[in-house]
Amino acid sequence: MKQFSLSTPQEGFIDITASVRNFVRRSQIKQGICQIFIPHTTAGLTINENADPDVVADMLAALKEMVPRLPYRHGEGNSPAHVKSSLMGCSLAVLVEDNNLVLGTWQGIYFCEFDGPRQRKVFVQVMEA
Amino acid sequence: MKQFSLSTPQEGFIDITASVRNFVRRSQIKQGICQIFIPHTTAGLTINENADPDVVADMLAALKEMVPRLPYRHGEGNSPAHVKSSLMGCSLAVLVEDNNLVLGTWQGIYFCEFDGPRQRKVFVQVMEA
Amino acid sequence: MKQFSLSTPQEGFIDITASVRNFVRRSQIKQGICQIFIPHTTAGLTINENADPDVVADMLAALKEMVPRLPYRHGEGNSPAHVKSSLMGCSLAVLVEDNNLVLGTWQGIYFCEFDGPRQRKVFVQVMEA
Repeated sequence: MKQFSLSTPQEGFIDITASVRNFVRRSQIKQGICQIFIPHTTAGLTINENADPDVVADMLAALKEMVPRLPYRHGEGNSPAHVKSSLMGCSLAVLVEDNNLVLGTWQGIYFCEFDGPRQRKVFVQVMEA
Repeated sequence: MKQFSLSTPQEGFIDITASVRNFVRRSQIKQGICQIFIPHTTAGLTINENADPDVVADMLAALKEMVPRLPYRHGEGNSPAHVKSSLMGCSLAVLVEDNNLVLGTWQGIYFCEFDGPRQRKVFVQVMEA
Repeated sequence: MKQFSLSTPQEGFIDITASVRNFVRRSQIKQGICQIFIPHTTAGLTINENADPDVVADMLAALKEMVPRLPYRHGEGNSPAHVKSSLMGCSLAVLVEDNNLVLGTWQGIYFCEFDGPRQRKVFVQVMEA
């Protein structure tokens, strides 16, 4: 299992595809799956379009609108960030072939910060088929 | 890694359980996990009820209502499809036992088209435990 | 593959971290992934904060508000539970290191009951890296 760190400047999506691909390359595993996991409850992982940055900006805006403003009980005031974390998920598997990530032309892997700025970690485990 | 193609006639959920099970059978792997992945950013994968087709029709209607109509920045006009894609996810693992998918009585595996009609692909990798 | 049962008293989130960890321990697998799967279509799996129980209470309230009240077609009247099931997902992978689950300080694994009281099952498969 490998890990890397991120400093998130604010709420937003950060493309971590290159870092994850790096670990796959160094694992020398030809075929299998790459499991990505974050040990956080106010952030998420997702795959979406990497060509037009407006897509993830739109997604952040949509999630903000979708999660209701309620009189939440959790004292820290970041309950919407916890909800968004579970909607995106904190665990994500990508297929590996030819010692590389199998991704569509427009797919990038994103770390979703819903409560930054924060210091964050990403764990990566490559499993051989 | 194996793959198959789909022609989606329009927005909607397509049951792909039989195709996925087929790959598991042919892998001859007795026990492990079956990782399904789609290389698309306006479609998703989910497991839900396969008995009453009204369930996935209701889900499509609920998602349409949940994702807000905003002045999105992405020029193609399909930002809601990108949001729904991340809500459902593009990667899904199902357990394998006795060289078969482990699914509940009412569970089917669905390809969720949010931006069709389109030509789509589904990748399947069976991992031995 | 191992499994355990749950009796859910009502809608709500149940922390299943200890039970899952138990299976990882007994598998004696040092490093890999632990795949959790539930064979249900009106329940889900998620990871979120385990320190303040208000967080999962807030999440339940937010999901209730997010999923719209529509004239659903499914006759059983539990379409919102099916939608919440797909939003959380029924399959979840956690990394394994030193024969233990790799979880952040504040992370717990939750079974999400959206349609209880019900008798439920959880399947666990530990895969070696």
